[in-house]
Order: sequence, then C-alpha cells, then structure tokens
Amino acid sequence: MVHNGIEYGDMQLISEAYDVLKSVGGLTNEELHEAFSEWNRSELESFLIEITADIFSVMDDKGEGYLVDKILDKTGMKGTGKWTVQQAAELSVAAPTIAASLDSRFLSGLKEERLAAASIFREAGVGDILKNESVNKKQLIDDVRKALYASKICSYAQGMNLLRAKSIEKGWNLNLGELARIWKGGCIIRAVFLDRIKKAYDRNPQLASLLVDPEFAREMVERQAAWRRVVSLAINFGVSTPGMSASLAYFDTYRRARLPANLVQAQRDYFGAHTYERIDVGGAYHTEWHKIANQTKAPVKVLI
Amino acid sequence: MVHNGIEYGDMQLISEAYDVLKSVGGLTNEELHEAFSEWNRSELESFLIEITADIFSVMDDKGEGYLVDKILDKTGMKGTGKWTVQQAAELSVAAPTIAASLDSRFLSGLKEERLAAASIFREAGVGDILKNESVNKKQLIDDVRKALYASKICSYAQGMNLLRAKSIEKGWNLNLGELARIWKGGCIIRAVFLDRIKKAYDRNPQLASLLVDPEFAREMVERQAAWRRVVSLAINFGVSTPGMSASLAYFDTYRRARLPANLVQAQRDYFGAHTYERIDVGGAYHTEWHKIANQTKAPVKVLI
Repeated sequence: MVHNGIEYGDMQLISEAYDVLKSVGGLTNEELHEAFSEWNRSELESFLIEITADIFSVMDDKGEGYLVDKILDKTGMKGTGKWTVQQAAELSVAAPTIAASLDSRFLSGLKEERLAAASIFREAGVGDILKNESVNKKQLIDDVRKALYASKICSYAQGMNLLRAKSIEKGWNLNLGELARIWKGGCIIRAVFLDRIKKAYDRNPQLASLLVDPEFAREMVERQAAWRRVVSLAINFGVSTPGMSASLAYFDTYRRARLPANLVQAQRDYFGAHTYERIDVGGAYHTEWHKIANQTKAPVKVLI
Repeated sequence: MVHNGIEYGDMQLISEAYDVLKSVGGLTNEELHEAFSEWNRSELESFLIEITADIFSVMDDKGEGYLVDKILDKTGMKGTGKWTVQQAAELSVAAPTIAASLDSRFLSGLKEERLAAASIFREAGVGDILKNESVNKKQLIDDVRKALYASKICSYAQGMNLLRAKSIEKGWNLNLGELARIWKGGCIIRAVFLDRIKKAYDRNPQLASLLVDPEFAREMVERQAAWRRVVSLAINFGVSTPGMSASLAYFDTYRRARLPANLVQAQRDYFGAHTYERIDVGGAYHTEWHKIANQTKAPVKVLI
C-alpha cells in the first residue's frame, strides 16, 4: 500500500514537471522526450522517468500529432493511495506529497466543474497562463529536474516514516533499507534512487527522516534554490504544483526549530482551556486570556 | 466534525499569517496586535481573529515579554481533524488545506526532530530566513490579509463540498447555507464570513463550489495577485505556508480546464493497461506504448 502511495507521489511530481515545462517553458513533445530521456541518465534514473520519455514519442494512431495530447485529463485510481493517506492520518504521520497526489486525482475527475471554473476565471482575467515572460528553456529544464528530485526525497521520507510508524505500532521491526532494496525488483517505483535510501538506512538504521541523512541533506541543499525558483515561477504563472509545493512546505516545516504552533496552542487554550506548555519550564499552563486582554484594554479606553 | 476540520484550517492559516508577518515582516507583538485588531474590522471579522488580537496583548506573568513567545510550539489535537481528512479521502473530496493543518500539527509535535534538522540545515547554509531584503510592512500586512482571506475561501469550499458529498451518499439533503448560518451561533468559526456563504447557497443551492459563486469568485480575483506575492515571498524566505500554498494550488487546479492528468493516465496505461479516455471520441483505449516507442527508436539506432 505504501509502495503505491509513493508511486502516486512520483507520478504526480512527474506530471507537474511536465506541466511546468510545457505550460511555462513552452516545450514541445519532442523537447519533453529529450528532457526526460536525459533525466533518465541523471539522479532521476527510474522506470517512471523512462516510460515518460517513451510516452512523449508516441504518435496518435487516430489523428494528427502526439497521443499524449489526445488523452483526457481524468485520472483513475484503485484505492491504495486513499488508504495510504488515511493510514498516515491514523498514525499521526504527515504525508502531504502523497495526499496532494490523491487530491489531484480527485480534482482531475471533476472535468466539467473545471471547465466551468476555467471559463468564469478566464472572463475575470485569470488565464491559465498569467504572465508570458520569456523563459530560458535550458535553465528551466535544469531547475525542474532539481525541483523534482528534491520533492521526491520528501515524498519518500513521508512513505518510509509511515512504514516505520506502523512497524513500531505492530512490533514488526521492519528493515526499511531492505524494503527499499526489495522495491528495486520489478516494482513501478524501481529506481537507482532506492539504492541511496538503502545506504541511508545502512548508515543509520534509526534515521529519523531521510531528510536528515547526510547525503540526502546535501542533495537537498544543493537543489533548494532551483526548487524555490520552480515553485515560485509556477505560482506566478498560475500553474498549480500541489505536490512540489507540499514537498517544499514539508521540508521548510521539518527543518524549522520554531513553528507558529505556539499561536495555535494559545488559541486552543483561549477558547477551550486546552492548556499549553512553556519553552522555559515544564508543566501544563492555562491563562485567562480574555480576562487579561480585556483588563489591559479597559483602562486605555477610559483614559482616551 | 467538518466544523472542526474547518476550524483547524482557519487556525493554521492564521498561524501562517502570523509567521509571515513576524518572520518575514519583522512585526513586533504590538504591531501584530494592531494588525489583527484592524483585520477584525475587515472582511476577516471573526471570533478567531479577535482572540488572536487579544493573545498578542497578553504579557508573560512568569517573566519578561509577551506570553505568546513563551509557549512551546507543539500543537495538541483531539481527533476531529484526523477524521475530517480520512472522510474526505473516503468520499473522493480534495481537502488539502484542512489536511495541511493536520500535517502541521503532526510536524509541530516532532520538536526534537525539528531542532536536530534545523541544526543540520543551518550548518549547511539554509537558515530560517534565507534573505534579508527590506519589506514594506504596510504593504505586507495588506497582502497577507488578502492571502489569508482567499485561502480561507478555499478551505471552506473544501469543507462544504465534503458535507455535500456525505449528504448525497446518505440522502440527508443537507441545506449547506442553513448550516453556515447555524455555525454563526457561538461556534469557534463564527464569523461575518458565514453570512456570505449563506448568501452564496441562497443564490444557488446547487453551487458546485464556493469558488465559482460570483461574489466569492470576484473576491478571489481581487486578491490573487497579493496571494501569489505572499506565498512566493514565504517560499523565498524559507518560511513554510503549507495551508496557504495548498489553498492556492487547490484554486489553480480547480480553475484549470486542462490538467497534466493526461500524462498520469498514459503512465497508468503504459505499465498497467488501465486504459484511458480520449478528448475527441468516447470509449476506453489501450496502447502498446512500450512496443510503439521502441519500434520508433529501433530504426533510428540502426541508421546511426
């Protein structure tokens, strides 16, 4: 099931790379075939990248042009992605990239609604492409490759942590590195990448997340500037990259010493007396926020 | 349950607004109190904005400074957000903003892991703040208010569509506008905003999504430039805004006539013969992608 959740993530991220290259970069199917063929000789080498390169080379046998352009943009599914997302929530594991891929399939299915919405927002001046700056294709292909790879690391980190959480719950004692190795044998997500995951867990079987493995951390640092460029560019062009954005937000949340969750805890304590912890001393605290805030305000009002 | 899922979304979006204003804009608690107080006289007027303004005015009774800064950034939860996300997946409804708020709570809980990751990535040159350009505070406050409001519309659209899907499944015949009205009576998400939802469903009880209600559509169009600026800025500063990004990706996916889901269908047909539909003629089709792609390639190789 988690293999399939990861597979959903890979396919979504690849489709976003395709969308950015095509809709922002203006690449033709020939150029897309070239780019993906080249990527299959890079750190992205994998079955899914290989078949994607193949897909862009197939002509339509029922008309003019390439077959990929004639395929309806509605994605089917069989349930394993859904179960992965539900299990992640059950086990308190964040899996936003995998969830984004599932949501994208749901939204792809609403073709009629999307056509209606597109018409409404196009009339209001929101086009599919918001800007039409000239983009350097070579630079864009390079940036998108890096964004795809960094996003993929985050997606696999989510999947592996989901397996680890279930393994702990059930006492399965799963060997995550060995699992990555097994997935090389004919699975849809088979990739050179899985060797790197195996090595990461060999280096440290207790690894908290793939993100903090020294090799993966280095790879992400090297790619983060390109990754941020691609996601920002897509946002400014009005092209959605839900998977890449979710991966980037996951990275930026996980590596953050201090999150704004203190405010959420303050809110919960304000309206529901759920209490909060402090950064300096242990224990659970409750504050009469409303009373204090309005005491402070009251004299000010009187003075004015 | 869905009320609480929406509440999770609101709280997450508010905490992201706080984070951007504080970490990117450098606002003090006094300035945050001012900004939220002002927002509570705007289109954002609501209980949660009001209490947030209050929170920034409360001093720490155990030491120097403001209490909000002393609260540990770990958010608790009681299960309703989790159930909302699981039900959304069950009903094939995309609810990425609500899911992002749940994931943020999960990640907030991994405080020790986050401290370790922060240290690793800080050493590698990825700080909490990547750039230190000067930001115009007044403009930023205005942009963040708009981004928060637009993101909120997307979050409520998800929640309402989840209710609608369950209503259809169970034959409840729920009156969504009436539900929005009821939530005004003392609920945590009570807000002037709920009146606008009521009116949207009064205008069209069959509304496919709040996003395409003429009034909400107009409000989103007016705010989209600011919304894109805030999310891009946060990405470039390395400050995660998972909820706002998820809302924006949801908007940009929902209003898109053509998504890259055609590629995902081609991949599924390539490796699993899951078939695909065409844009021009009905029916389910299967193509021997591998065979055709490699037939095309073979002669080329021979010729070279």
